[in-house]
Amino acid sequence: MMSDSSAVQDRYPDDTAHCFGCGRLNAQGHQLKSYQDGEGLIARFTPQPYHTAVPGYVYGGLLASLVDCHATATASAAAARAMRLESGRERVPRFVTASLHVNYLRPTPLGPALEIRGKAVEVTVRKVVVEVTIAVKGETTVRGRVVAVPLPSDMQ
Amino acid sequence: MMSDSSAVQDRYPDDTAHCFGCGRLNAQGHQLKSYQDGEGLIARFTPQPYHTAVPGYVYGGLLASLVDCHATATASAAAARAMRLESGRERVPRFVTASLHVNYLRPTPLGPALEIRGKAVEVTVRKVVVEVTIAVKGETTVRGRVVAVPLPSDMQ
Repeated sequence: MMSDSSAVQDRYPDDTAHCFGCGRLNAQGHQLKSYQDGEGLIARFTPQPYHTAVPGYVYGGLLASLVDCHATATASAAAARAMRLESGRERVPRFVTASLHVNYLRPTPLGPALEIRGKAVEVTVRKVVVEVTIAVKGETTVRGRVVAVPLPSDMQ
Repeated sequence: MMSDSSAVQDRYPDDTAHCFGCGRLNAQGHQLKSYQDGEGLIARFTPQPYHTAVPGYVYGGLLASLVDCHATATASAAAARAMRLESGRERVPRFVTASLHVNYLRPTPLGPALEIRGKAVEVTVRKVVVEVTIAVKGETTVRGRVVAVPLPSDMQ
């Protein structure tokens, strides 16, 4: 049985838990884990040495991927809260990304753990809008904004 | 000696050719190759079976990564053309992404090769704006817009 402190991704239904970025059932993937932290969600991820943009800095495509997966988890958690699925044990509704916007504020140094924070700023039945930041040692290097929508029936 | 049909990424200076998405010197990376095709650039990429979003569909983070790397290549090529480095052999100026916007128009089926097209729509000395599409079997599933800027001196 999962505890109240389960990662959101560990509450995704099995048939939607294969995402390369965050699926617990994808052995080759990143297996990002996002946890409730106050009003928002937090995740930590340490890139591999080969996740380079240019030497010394994190690959922007990985940063976009982290924004994407953390945002859909944040959307799931926000929707679960709205639907009163708050015990931390039920399955949560799965969201996917309709649009992803990432601003690279400054280069992200490669090496330290990245701290990824997400907050739902709009929650409706059709979509959840999520704002995400990525920080290294307290300095924010990336800001993202994602429109997440419930998993379409043609993807199930 | 490189031919006129070199991939743009093969013309990046060695010290900026380690990108996980498209660097020829990153053995673990995707090694995306983007080629001039009329006014724009084209690349093809076949995702691996584990690059899943949910089963049967391509991981959105990978799609964002492909938009990102193809756009910076398109920016390099457009800048090289503006600077009259057109023989296809000279090194090209390296660009990085300032902002990335990706719209997922519909789910992208996993399996077939993806066709990625990019076109520079604004070229100045400070930035290049690039529009990108990703299509599968002729159907566009993703549209992206990237603001690319010359590699900052603090990343060199």
